[in-house]
Amino acid sequence: MHGIFITIEGPEGAGKTTIIQKVAKELEKRRIDVILTREPGGIPISEQIRGIILNPENLTMDARTEALLYAAARRQHLVEKVIPCLQNGAVVLCDRFIDSSLAYQGYARELGMDEILSINQFAIQELMPNKTIYFDIEPEIGLERIEANKGREINRLDLEKLDFHRMVRRGYKQLLQKFPDRIKEIDASQPMEQVFLHTMEIVDKLLEENK
Amino acid sequence: MHGIFITIEGPEGAGKTTIIQKVAKELEKRRIDVILTREPGGIPISEQIRGIILNPENLTMDARTEALLYAAARRQHLVEKVIPCLQNGAVVLCDRFIDSSLAYQGYARELGMDEILSINQFAIQELMPNKTIYFDIEPEIGLERIEANKGREINRLDLEKLDFHRMVRRGYKQLLQKFPDRIKEIDASQPMEQVFLHTMEIVDKLLEENK
Repeated sequence: MHGIFITIEGPEGAGKTTIIQKVAKELEKRRIDVILTREPGGIPISEQIRGIILNPENLTMDARTEALLYAAARRQHLVEKVIPCLQNGAVVLCDRFIDSSLAYQGYARELGMDEILSINQFAIQELMPNKTIYFDIEPEIGLERIEANKGREINRLDLEKLDFHRMVRRGYKQLLQKFPDRIKEIDASQPMEQVFLHTMEIVDKLLEENK
Repeated sequence: MHGIFITIEGPEGAGKTTIIQKVAKELEKRRIDVILTREPGGIPISEQIRGIILNPENLTMDARTEALLYAAARRQHLVEKVIPCLQNGAVVLCDRFIDSSLAYQGYARELGMDEILSINQFAIQELMPNKTIYFDIEPEIGLERIEANKGREINRLDLEKLDFHRMVRRGYKQLLQKFPDRIKEIDASQPMEQVFLHTMEIVDKLLEENK
């Protein structure tokens, strides 16, 4: 496999989707083979699994069941999409990957980061991303951005979410300490153009190293 | 939890289902609270997961995806059915459990017993069965019994299956060495009545120990 695997992490409202699309366009302009994807990535088996996770009737879903389902969907997306693209030498940009499970389920849902890492290592085997870009933002600002898009005020439910998102952020901060070489942090509270330039710096350095 | 958790293992054609039903009836006669179950056990979330595993259109299903899905379905069945019954003090007889994954996927599908054990320990936490009864039978005899029921000769496909079932049996034999206290072996090539009596001996001893 001679492709490059880059994952993008961070909370909702950090601007991940916008930036990653700009990065993909920039690489396409340079005639670099780039694939933009996100789990479940249009893989039918992974979509079916996601359907179970998101089914609003599945109220009794246990947190560990959910974690195993995410790992299963990740595995299939990896096998059917990410690995073939990397084998073709593409740059694969993936919106969320293993670190989301570690921060959200391992840390914020308190299932334990090491345990979530273990089932995900079974799922991905040795295929960790070459580089992970973490978009850091105060949960308050991230939520404000989401709300601004929706055009409504923050309500009680959002405030509950705030505590949860604070936990998620703490989880990501631990991951930064655990994987300092792999994960690079970007201050996503900056103007979009700054965030994009900073992201491109990391991507360019990686492309240079893998020439 | 003051119930007793017994799992029954072995290949198809070993007579598991027939014997386990007789055991349940015998315990009911003695007014013991007994629950007979098998994964996915009628738990809607587990049934949905099983639906993905068995969907004949899912031809690209990776072996690791499948193993994670089995672990997820096991978790939910455990949480919604097995654990509440054990908390109520029942004897829970479960047709297949973790050892099936270890023998079929870990050993016969060569994913590795330790790896399959690890993701299943995440799923079941510390809840291993109090006792596991393994019905041992030569794969040839097991398959003959199945074929006898279907009333047709063994074909090429069945012969391919034979090699697979020999691997499964070797997997179970390894588990017997790994968990000598938990797993008890019964020679299932004996007449049904003998197998039943032998099973009841194990169950009675367990009930006596847990009085």
